[in-house]
Amino acid sequence: MRLTRTFIPILREAPREAEIVSHKLMLRAGMIRQQAAGIYSWLPLGLRVLRRIEQIVREEQDRSGAVEILMPTIQSADLWRESGRYEAYGKEMLRITDRHEREMLFGPTNEEMVTDIVRAHVKSYRDLPLNLYHIQWKFRDEVRPRFGVMRGREFLMKDAYSFDLDEAGARTAYNRMFVAYLRTFARLGLKAIPMRADTGPIGGDLSHEFIILAATGESEVFCHRDYLAFDTPPADVDFGDPAALQALVDRWTSLYAATSEMHDAPTFEAVAETDRVSARGIEVGHIFYFGTKYSAPMGARVAGPGGEMHDLHMGSYGIGPSRLVAAIVEASHDEAGIVWPDSVAPYDVALLNLRTGDAATDAACEQIEREFGAAGLSVLYDDRDERPGGKFATADLIGIPWQVVVGPKSLAEGKVELKRRATGERESVALSDVVVRLCS
Amino acid sequence: MRLTRTFIPILREAPREAEIVSHKLMLRAGMIRQQAAGIYSWLPLGLRVLRRIEQIVREEQDRSGAVEILMPTIQSADLWRESGRYEAYGKEMLRITDRHEREMLFGPTNEEMVTDIVRAHVKSYRDLPLNLYHIQWKFRDEVRPRFGVMRGREFLMKDAYSFDLDEAGARTAYNRMFVAYLRTFARLGLKAIPMRADTGPIGGDLSHEFIILAATGESEVFCHRDYLAFDTPPADVDFGDPAALQALVDRWTSLYAATSEMHDAPTFEAVAETDRVSARGIEVGHIFYFGTKYSAPMGARVAGPGGEMHDLHMGSYGIGPSRLVAAIVEASHDEAGIVWPDSVAPYDVALLNLRTGDAATDAACEQIEREFGAAGLSVLYDDRDERPGGKFATADLIGIPWQVVVGPKSLAEGKVELKRRATGERESVALSDVVVRLCS
Repeated sequence: MRLTRTFIPILREAPREAEIVSHKLMLRAGMIRQQAAGIYSWLPLGLRVLRRIEQIVREEQDRSGAVEILMPTIQSADLWRESGRYEAYGKEMLRITDRHEREMLFGPTNEEMVTDIVRAHVKSYRDLPLNLYHIQWKFRDEVRPRFGVMRGREFLMKDAYSFDLDEAGARTAYNRMFVAYLRTFARLGLKAIPMRADTGPIGGDLSHEFIILAATGESEVFCHRDYLAFDTPPADVDFGDPAALQALVDRWTSLYAATSEMHDAPTFEAVAETDRVSARGIEVGHIFYFGTKYSAPMGARVAGPGGEMHDLHMGSYGIGPSRLVAAIVEASHDEAGIVWPDSVAPYDVALLNLRTGDAATDAACEQIEREFGAAGLSVLYDDRDERPGGKFATADLIGIPWQVVVGPKSLAEGKVELKRRATGERESVALSDVVVRLCS
Repeated sequence: MRLTRTFIPILREAPREAEIVSHKLMLRAGMIRQQAAGIYSWLPLGLRVLRRIEQIVREEQDRSGAVEILMPTIQSADLWRESGRYEAYGKEMLRITDRHEREMLFGPTNEEMVTDIVRAHVKSYRDLPLNLYHIQWKFRDEVRPRFGVMRGREFLMKDAYSFDLDEAGARTAYNRMFVAYLRTFARLGLKAIPMRADTGPIGGDLSHEFIILAATGESEVFCHRDYLAFDTPPADVDFGDPAALQALVDRWTSLYAATSEMHDAPTFEAVAETDRVSARGIEVGHIFYFGTKYSAPMGARVAGPGGEMHDLHMGSYGIGPSRLVAAIVEASHDEAGIVWPDSVAPYDVALLNLRTGDAATDAACEQIEREFGAAGLSVLYDDRDERPGGKFATADLIGIPWQVVVGPKSLAEGKVELKRRATGERESVALSDVVVRLCS
């Protein structure tokens, strides 16, 4: 894609309202635009990152056996009256009255609706286990939305809901999501640590938050240093093997880890001092087991093997892809701008033509663009009529993992410069070798 | 995907509220579930079709040079006051008051918001032409929602907005979308005819609806028979060549074509009788040129080559992917169920094991599933413990283009049966040849 043919409105300065680094950098890089308090448009560069994150989340949900559906944003208040949450939910719920004076709402979460789908169609234990997920825009009417898409009002969420015959089945379902989340965050280039959590308005008695460590994180967290070196569960983990899943979860919950709400200072101090990590963290995922909290009042039950009826045991599992865009920037940036992990970068390669309009550099850039395209790598080609300094600054700001710099002097010797954004390392490479160099 | 591991709740009978064939078949095939009047959940089979349609729409938008963004669903009423449409829009707009008593709305369309984005960031004629599109859920609070997702309240729409320096540029932008739409509908397996249209609440003086012919269509349409044989513009059409685009549009508007609102009987009767087609149609796309209707009141202007300021000339261009799912079913079904065009089918192949639990048929099916997967074809494997008749009926109902039937008798001779859903043609194929047969 040529920079002059897409729409990446770079800002020289971050608007004053941006308080945290991810918000500043996302605005400056032209990734988002605020449309109202806590409500954002995603411009092309931001949308590409959001979609890549969404796709990694989707692949790991699918791998674990969860099934994708898509529920609407607008829900009926009556459904929420069945669970008793309509009155209880409070002002964070965006309540709406339609033209026929029916009470509706913009869904902040979907336990009731998915339970309605399942009670209509699932009648037997033979249809279980079942885990339905969707990736949809939600709305929570925060009193004071801030920090850009980190704490927006309209936000994208992947929420999964598991249905099982009994608690043992539901705990295996919980473990499946636990392991899928570890894999998801690792693929996003993040080090996430599961921490025991409060269940809040979702309810239930078992819950973990997944927290990434970032110097600019919103809350204080405490954990054992060994977590930082734990291996990610492999791609071929057997999601059909409850014992294997339990062993993974046991390992990942064996050491101390707590957010400030759940922190127990004496227990933490029993950890050897050199193993104690006290740091800032950002919540990027939250999972819950809550048994029959929704199925019992809503009548979601199935026949067991002997014909007896069982209320379904449920859990729910959330990850926010839009919040993750900001969280990744918080975890991965430097003075010059964003440093995208390869897996979520908006493009694989930034191609800088240092003398647009020069026949030789233009031809070389077009050749490189074509060859990378043929090799399956995406390229953002800076073909603007702009000084080299401006192009370097833009490339560093938007943080694409590789930069290929084509200047007239080196090109006369058949060379281009390759720069790795994360490390700043540069090397001079023959024009004819640059594609092979990155694809090998 | 195995049928027992996904979630396709087949209904024996269509619920009584379904009036039209697409609504009946989509409910029976377990593609959607109604959550409130005009509001649907997309179950796995429906979501797969929706996503394939969305992707074809996206590819043709991208090919034409349009740039993808994503605007939020919730908008500020103040933005609509700037254009004067907030009061004018009427009861179809879902109006919302947030916790701070600010007036908001669920976007029914996005002319105001995209104009706000462009006025903030586009300052010079050098940044033009620009066409920004997004694919997002919209809400129109219809008095009487009906016909399933054909006329829902919450619906998915691709809406594009073009910005040009002058009317000539804007007409080229209009032609680009005109040609992109012809290609889009052809790729969806539809025969769409552009018809001159009223501009309604969007405004402007030039507008075409794209209408597909379907016996069960919602409205009466009239056109020249030759349109049915016109070639689709090729994939390599040059979207940078205004004259080439104009020639295509001229050809596709050269003969009579009108919806009943715009129908002129005397002109139609001047067409030779054998060339007159009078049929039922379904609107699947609508494009508008409306000049400076939004840019002038909202102050979206750029500096021209001489420094003088120009109000931007705009157009907008809509396709509804969720409505298209139903429209395609209306255009392509038979007594037994849906007949998906290859390009949008939820899976490429339905694999029917006629004796689940039999070691030989199970092994053959697993082999076929694996081989199709390796060849890049998606398979829905009916591994249910169910009579052959039930499996045949389900496969015909859900309408996957190819069926591979594995029964113990033929398998003993090394054969499986291959059936083309659209024609009903069957052939006996060696187990070892079936994948090659479909991939060649």
